[in-house]
Amino acid sequence: MIPVVSLITDFGWRDEYVASMKARMLNLLPGLRFIDISHDVPPQDVRAGAWLLGRAVDSFDRGTVHLAVVDPGVGTDRRSIAVASRGAFFVAPDNGLLDRILDDVEEAVCLDPKRVQSRTQRTLSPTFQGRDLFAPAAARLAAGERLRDLGDPVTDFVRLNWKNELVGTEIRSEVVWVDHFGNLITPIRAADLDRLSTPLSVVVGDRRIEGLSQTYGEVENGEVLAYIGSGGTLELARRNGSLERYLGAGRGEKVTVTGATE
Amino acid sequence: MIPVVSLITDFGWRDEYVASMKARMLNLLPGLRFIDISHDVPPQDVRAGAWLLGRAVDSFDRGTVHLAVVDPGVGTDRRSIAVASRGAFFVAPDNGLLDRILDDVEEAVCLDPKRVQSRTQRTLSPTFQGRDLFAPAAARLAAGERLRDLGDPVTDFVRLNWKNELVGTEIRSEVVWVDHFGNLITPIRAADLDRLSTPLSVVVGDRRIEGLSQTYGEVENGEVLAYIGSGGTLELARRNGSLERYLGAGRGEKVTVTGATE
Amino acid sequence: MIPVVSLITDFGWRDEYVASMKARMLNLLPGLRFIDISHDVPPQDVRAGAWLLGRAVDSFDRGTVHLAVVDPGVGTDRRSIAVASRGAFFVAPDNGLLDRILDDVEEAVCLDPKRVQSRTQRTLSPTFQGRDLFAPAAARLAAGERLRDLGDPVTDFVRLNWKNELVGTEIRSEVVWVDHFGNLITPIRAADLDRLSTPLSVVVGDRRIEGLSQTYGEVENGEVLAYIGSGGTLELARRNGSLERYLGAGRGEKVTVTGATE
Repeated sequence: MIPVVSLITDFGWRDEYVASMKARMLNLLPGLRFIDISHDVPPQDVRAGAWLLGRAVDSFDRGTVHLAVVDPGVGTDRRSIAVASRGAFFVAPDNGLLDRILDDVEEAVCLDPKRVQSRTQRTLSPTFQGRDLFAPAAARLAAGERLRDLGDPVTDFVRLNWKNELVGTEIRSEVVWVDHFGNLITPIRAADLDRLSTPLSVVVGDRRIEGLSQTYGEVENGEVLAYIGSGGTLELARRNGSLERYLGAGRGEKVTVTGATE
Repeated sequence: MIPVVSLITDFGWRDEYVASMKARMLNLLPGLRFIDISHDVPPQDVRAGAWLLGRAVDSFDRGTVHLAVVDPGVGTDRRSIAVASRGAFFVAPDNGLLDRILDDVEEAVCLDPKRVQSRTQRTLSPTFQGRDLFAPAAARLAAGERLRDLGDPVTDFVRLNWKNELVGTEIRSEVVWVDHFGNLITPIRAADLDRLSTPLSVVVGDRRIEGLSQTYGEVENGEVLAYIGSGGTLELARRNGSLERYLGAGRGEKVTVTGATE
Repeated sequence: MIPVVSLITDFGWRDEYVASMKARMLNLLPGLRFIDISHDVPPQDVRAGAWLLGRAVDSFDRGTVHLAVVDPGVGTDRRSIAVASRGAFFVAPDNGLLDRILDDVEEAVCLDPKRVQSRTQRTLSPTFQGRDLFAPAAARLAAGERLRDLGDPVTDFVRLNWKNELVGTEIRSEVVWVDHFGNLITPIRAADLDRLSTPLSVVVGDRRIEGLSQTYGEVENGEVLAYIGSGGTLELARRNGSLERYLGAGRGEKVTVTGATE
């Protein structure tokens, strides 16, 4: 078993920040492998990071350690946590970033810098705990250390609210992520749509889309479509174009799905 | 022998898409190593992706598996292929993306989702076959499975046309790639230029360049030069600046090389 | 011991350049591991690259090989060097890029293409020595070859000047790096500030900051602060925002720290 640490941050690619975390982990466990999920979470946007993390985790093997750092509260008294959930480990600030895996928590601790850092003997930077606390915690979990070695148990967590309400024959929701292609992604699952009667129509901004497609090829170039995306939730796209640019819509934009009235 | 998979896509770095493909491959072959060639192929631009792939492959060892996904036709009836060429393997949609290695095909198959996926037991997303079909096919080839285990033989392929015509004492061509430094790259090989008599002159946009240089240092700062680049074809650049920005020229811009009339 | 090569360049992520260097290194040493520090050094900006390299190296283990390529003089007669310093190896053009580790040089050679390339039998591109000279040199050092096998000893180097002057009760310096969050980073170390009497005030552009903070949480959202950053030098930031955008300030912007007059 080759230990794998995935990384998801808002650090971008320009600076040495991501490499410093990886180097610090290799100090502790030279055989470690890294998979970068994304470092392009919008700066300080915990909600966007939480959504992306939720999309990514299911592709990874059991035993993976997911290191997530979007941390506007670094240096305040917000807690740092490590969590076992769905057979994997997660290390992050306790600010909602792990929201999408917290319903399945098996065990969780509040990271204790003294216990996490015992081997590395470095000081804890008040502005970069990704390198000085989260990275060593992730490496130690990847090395097989137990959660309870890193801190005391914790059972309550900061949670987020994903707007996704059924009201009459409507689901009222919003865009939670815009991908590289300009596709607009919502938190509405296929199972949510099953609660409405077909035919469905989707409204985003001033645009109405009638019915769901299976794939882009079902509409003409430049046309707008709605479909269940690879992450299992409703997405809106423009074939061979960017719906984000076409509509001028982004994260937070209202999305309404309306079913038939019976 | 440590198996290596290279990746070239138009997925960008913002989303979980690349990581999902890597995670899926690690599910099948935990010892696999990845080298990212680029995820910044312009969205849906098969031609640009094909060019970049052709530039990259020769640096890699025999036995490397190259996973290429620029796939505007995902979910339509376009075929998915795996190809052995030049001692390496290539997995991609059959849309021209592999054009530059198809003259040397040793063996090729049309991927059969049922055979590729037999071990993974996942459904095939109609919008993300990179993760659900191409990635497992690449991992299985890296693990030593044979092409014929993944599908039935195929011998005809979608091809591209690289504009590069000799007309009298002129070669008429175009810019096929613009690099990070703003250098303009053409498909004109050194051998093509040998068919013209020196001295040569190159015209791009409203700019004429007399003669070829060996390296940037032969001209003054800010001056424009033409040279055979590291990929073996004619490139145009501005010393310590971006020729793209200087000329306002990009992919598709006409380039004409004129030889002496004898 | 698993050999690690770190990479820092101005090549960006769009092209095959970085992958070509990695592939060339894997040709020579298949077990090699890579950590990308950054490929977003501003094009041809040796000074910015040197700063970033200095920030990154201390997180890495002894024995790491750092491959650094920001090389506006490629193809001219500037020298190529390999250096042992602080227990690690460095391969780079001799243009100042290694400035921040040159005070601790243990051994250094001027790379001799004939000796570096003896095994690879490739020609030396006059425009891409990162791939054809620096990468094989790095791989050979990672494989345990000695510096003296790659070239003849060298003891003088191109150096840079980091503006950081104590004048009376003032330190006069400048912004040397702007990070992904828009934080402005200076070369002023904590020890430099100890030479001034408190209270300190910092001026950048038309903005004055009174006193140093420990972390972002000590000021209100949107407020500006000064603190010793994770790299050990004075940084200026705006809480939950970009100070770069807020002030319209970037690299080279003057920064003055004034101590109390006694």
